[in-house]
Amino acid sequence: MTVLGIDLGGTKLALAVFSEDGSLVREETSMLAGRTGGEVGALIAEQVTAFLNKDHEISSIGACVPGISFHETGRVWAPNIPGWDDYPLHDELQQVADRVPVSVDSDRACYILGESWKGNAAGCRDAIYLAVGTGIGAGILTDGKVLRGAHDIAGAVGWMALERPFDRKYVECGCFETQASGEGIAKLAKEILSSAKSYEGVFNNIPPKEITASDIFAAYEKGDSVATEVVRQCIELWGMAVANLVSIFNPEKIILGGGVFGAAVRFIPEIRDEAAKWAQPISMKRVSIEPSALGARAGLYGAGLLAMQNLGSE
Amino acid sequence: MTVLGIDLGGTKLALAVFSEDGSLVREETSMLAGRTGGEVGALIAEQVTAFLNKDHEISSIGACVPGISFHETGRVWAPNIPGWDDYPLHDELQQVADRVPVSVDSDRACYILGESWKGNAAGCRDAIYLAVGTGIGAGILTDGKVLRGAHDIAGAVGWMALERPFDRKYVECGCFETQASGEGIAKLAKEILSSAKSYEGVFNNIPPKEITASDIFAAYEKGDSVATEVVRQCIELWGMAVANLVSIFNPEKIILGGGVFGAAVRFIPEIRDEAAKWAQPISMKRVSIEPSALGARAGLYGAGLLAMQNLGSE
Repeated sequence: MTVLGIDLGGTKLALAVFSEDGSLVREETSMLAGRTGGEVGALIAEQVTAFLNKDHEISSIGACVPGISFHETGRVWAPNIPGWDDYPLHDELQQVADRVPVSVDSDRACYILGESWKGNAAGCRDAIYLAVGTGIGAGILTDGKVLRGAHDIAGAVGWMALERPFDRKYVECGCFETQASGEGIAKLAKEILSSAKSYEGVFNNIPPKEITASDIFAAYEKGDSVATEVVRQCIELWGMAVANLVSIFNPEKIILGGGVFGAAVRFIPEIRDEAAKWAQPISMKRVSIEPSALGARAGLYGAGLLAMQNLGSE
Repeated sequence: MTVLGIDLGGTKLALAVFSEDGSLVREETSMLAGRTGGEVGALIAEQVTAFLNKDHEISSIGACVPGISFHETGRVWAPNIPGWDDYPLHDELQQVADRVPVSVDSDRACYILGESWKGNAAGCRDAIYLAVGTGIGAGILTDGKVLRGAHDIAGAVGWMALERPFDRKYVECGCFETQASGEGIAKLAKEILSSAKSYEGVFNNIPPKEITASDIFAAYEKGDSVATEVVRQCIELWGMAVANLVSIFNPEKIILGGGVFGAAVRFIPEIRDEAAKWAQPISMKRVSIEPSALGARAGLYGAGLLAMQNLGSE
């Protein structure tokens, strides 16, 4: 018996076969290469068919999507894939899979499922994956189950209010995400640069429009003053967000992942120190803050566990 | 068949018999009258024995405590009852109850259980009771179950970080609670008064030490400038906290209760407006923000539902 995990990202598609004990047996990655709408669905269908034809032991399929999966309708919302505002992924996959059962879930749900299966949250029943990339979201495991909320959109922690008063710039994607996501970090650097009077440093050589979070972490290593200020503010905001999750959920672990963690993993001790100022003190003492063990494969492993859960065996 | 609900508060003890359909049949209240430690335990034991002797149909007992109930040990922490840092309430109750099963839970868990049974969250599987009184905490129902966390201290939302940078005054009980609990409201009024240069109003006639949240709401009704500023700030903070719970949990309902709601129930429309600025917009549109229907009896009804859950019938 094996299961198939599918991880759809904004630019690529990964499929992997997992053995019963959760070992990754085989993995294939394709680029979306500008595909949109039904073309992306067709690519997934083609790949799944190829895997099913090659491996007759595949007994279950799980899929991770970059957005929200609505369980009642089987449809998904994936903002980075044009034409996937309301895409009937579950039904399409089920048609291809025939009698093999199919589950679909959001990327943030799959991240924490993956880490709880084969990563740094292994064995945890209460754990949170805080994903900081282009955007910010959290996959939340409470008492062994993924928190969905009433309409499958729980975990939208990028909208966390961390600083008053309200600023119009938060309207688009929320206070926390606006300031501390990968894009937020870059924007903050530009803001600081544009108001700096006498700055000499790394960013004199990068056009403001091209500054990325990676540039900022690299500049920080060189002691750049603007990068130092940006990182200080991010640590403060990440620490406050971690604190809020600790006080609200009393989890065993918080996993920091996504594209920014990555490079920002080196700041985990400082983020923990900041969180410890704010959080419920007993919960804070008992939580472990860790990087993702699975990195870019967290969603793929999570899709594998989704597939396993279809079979009632984990 | 009936069940017995016990609601222990910081100053009094209430017991009530509920019929199978959840109607409150009989209720008795005793004052703690300065009792501490084992004396409080003895009062509860005496009352429970009297109820069991009078009503032989009592098949299950639930108890609500003003603090935390640790399920592994059966012990409770109730900061307002001297000597109850680590009190073996479950074992004591079980000894008195003999073969009648006993459950104990925290007040915040019982509040949302009560509202979900017979109050404004009836029928909800995802709902939150935000209790704002002397302190602040939340009882959180996710997918029909109370959120406990890894060590039974989930829901400590008084520790929510809502404003940076960190201020030393948050150390004792957290950023949100320090500023927007009943005590926080009174402190804020005193702070504003002490820095006001030319204030003429209601608080000229109240010694600062004696100002309470009720005084502030009464002064607000009269258009007092300090009370107006305090209420404005509280609405902002309550709105941000509600927003964070909406974005994180995507609940059907948030119930505002505790001593402050009460009088502050009239501000629910303004709190909703403030929350709507910050929260994940789809979740915000679909959540209902409501006052507690059970008021001071929410914990007692919650204890009744705890007792029902012991029997596997709700």
